[in-house]
Amino acid sequence: MNGPNLADVETAAAGIASFVYRTPVLTSRSLNDLAGCELYFKCENFQVCGAFKARGAMNAVLNLPSAVDSVVTHSSGNHGTALAWAASTTGRKAYIVVPKDAPAFKRDAIARYGATIVECDATLESRETTLEGFRRTNDATFIPPYDDVRVIAGQGTATMELLKQIEGLDQIWAPIGGGGLASGAIVAANGVCEVIGSEPELARDAFDSMRAGRLLPALPPMTVADGLRSSLGENTFRILHGNQTQIFLCSEDEIRAALRLVWERLKVVIEPSSAVPLAAILSNPGIANGRVGVILSGGNVSYPGD
Amino acid sequence: MNGPNLADVETAAAGIASFVYRTPVLTSRSLNDLAGCELYFKCENFQVCGAFKARGAMNAVLNLPSAVDSVVTHSSGNHGTALAWAASTTGRKAYIVVPKDAPAFKRDAIARYGATIVECDATLESRETTLEGFRRTNDATFIPPYDDVRVIAGQGTATMELLKQIEGLDQIWAPIGGGGLASGAIVAANGVCEVIGSEPELARDAFDSMRAGRLLPALPPMTVADGLRSSLGENTFRILHGNQTQIFLCSEDEIRAALRLVWERLKVVIEPSSAVPLAAILSNPGIANGRVGVILSGGNVSYPGD
Repeated sequence: MNGPNLADVETAAAGIASFVYRTPVLTSRSLNDLAGCELYFKCENFQVCGAFKARGAMNAVLNLPSAVDSVVTHSSGNHGTALAWAASTTGRKAYIVVPKDAPAFKRDAIARYGATIVECDATLESRETTLEGFRRTNDATFIPPYDDVRVIAGQGTATMELLKQIEGLDQIWAPIGGGGLASGAIVAANGVCEVIGSEPELARDAFDSMRAGRLLPALPPMTVADGLRSSLGENTFRILHGNQTQIFLCSEDEIRAALRLVWERLKVVIEPSSAVPLAAILSNPGIANGRVGVILSGGNVSYPGD
Repeated sequence: MNGPNLADVETAAAGIASFVYRTPVLTSRSLNDLAGCELYFKCENFQVCGAFKARGAMNAVLNLPSAVDSVVTHSSGNHGTALAWAASTTGRKAYIVVPKDAPAFKRDAIARYGATIVECDATLESRETTLEGFRRTNDATFIPPYDDVRVIAGQGTATMELLKQIEGLDQIWAPIGGGGLASGAIVAANGVCEVIGSEPELARDAFDSMRAGRLLPALPPMTVADGLRSSLGENTFRILHGNQTQIFLCSEDEIRAALRLVWERLKVVIEPSSAVPLAAILSNPGIANGRVGVILSGGNVSYPGD
């Protein structure tokens, strides 16, 4: 299987335009001083449903045959909420397989968009068997969280938009979990600017997969960046590996410090996964250079002040 | 003394344009549902120095005679940081009178912009006598935090910008401390849309002053909205009272709940003072109607998650 290509991202952008926000780009002089380059933060934490995932989910749903009236996925996080929203917005039913131990505020967000929550145990195996059983008996179409060309094309629209908002970017940094955001960015950037991946040390499966030249499984879910615990999929690995994408790592302390910097200096609420690119930039001095886009992937956290 | 007028705000906007950000306007469908109207949040928390205060401070400094090479003010908060920034940006020295008990992160911000901190005791009297003594011996020009037509005109540029960004606003809600932001908004709105003030119950001096028809002093500094503890000044009272500005109140619990909503739904970091308009909107149902601008005044708080 191939794709998506640049035209697919353009088609996705036109298709989802009336459903998603054109998110703003923010800058901070003090963060530029710290990083030694010009940082342009693409605020996908302000996106519908609080994360870039709305783009891919909506593009996938808009490309379904009209006869498909229900969709299903497994996710305790942003893809689940995004698919619930995309389905209800287009008049479809959504079923989201959610691990029993998922935080209440994430379940609430999924439920707010009218999706049905299907509980499973907190293991990858239980997720997959629950999903598979559900699909077979309920005739719902599976919309994968990242390993899907429609989803990747949708995520690429964030980068396409950023490239229009800020001229002359030299690099775009994205976090890597399943790789949907980063591989969409590669397709959208189309060689015009370099796309650089970033990962927590504790979830370095993409980094190791790139070195090994083959897809390695996810590591135990230890990192605070809970959106980045999954492994790459076949499509996202193909795109990242085919483009010899550089990936830089950061520690848990560096993620927490970067999170704090974004909250205090940029004044935006992000979830830990979104802090990973800045953490990797600050802990690998000299790599980020010139005009640097940074995708803040999402902001779905509960208020930490209580 | 009179003014400022609409032309002063226009002149201020042109003068400060190359120094300050045109801050974005954010919306949230779930907050609209809660409030029963269309809310447009003007994000002055993303402004230079993290608050709208940069506008007024820069306008005041740009209007100084060129012979003035040092400025002074008293502030433990955003005006102090803003004046430190405006002075250093225009090649002047700034002295900021800061109470001994001011939080370290606020002192750090003032110091980051190269200002000299002059310590005083934590009373209004000590602030004023320290400032007065300093002015007399050091020949620095006092830039008041709000009761100054140059400052008010500068603050009005936030509203002028918002009215250009969002067409057909019916109301603009602003918090009231010293009244600089709200009176600048009244001048900038120029009758085109209604400006509504909001205050904590525990700092309702403006509310009471409007009813009494005369300027009442500040209440004891009890509210969590620390930016709103000051009383109105002569100019801001004149403008607010002359326009029969409506002011709505909210409790401390309502402020905390609104703060949480803005963090969780809008994904932006605000300080408690910025939550007061939304708190007043939600606790006075039916008052906010149609297309409603809300000025998020600032975002200078330390990360609450540790």
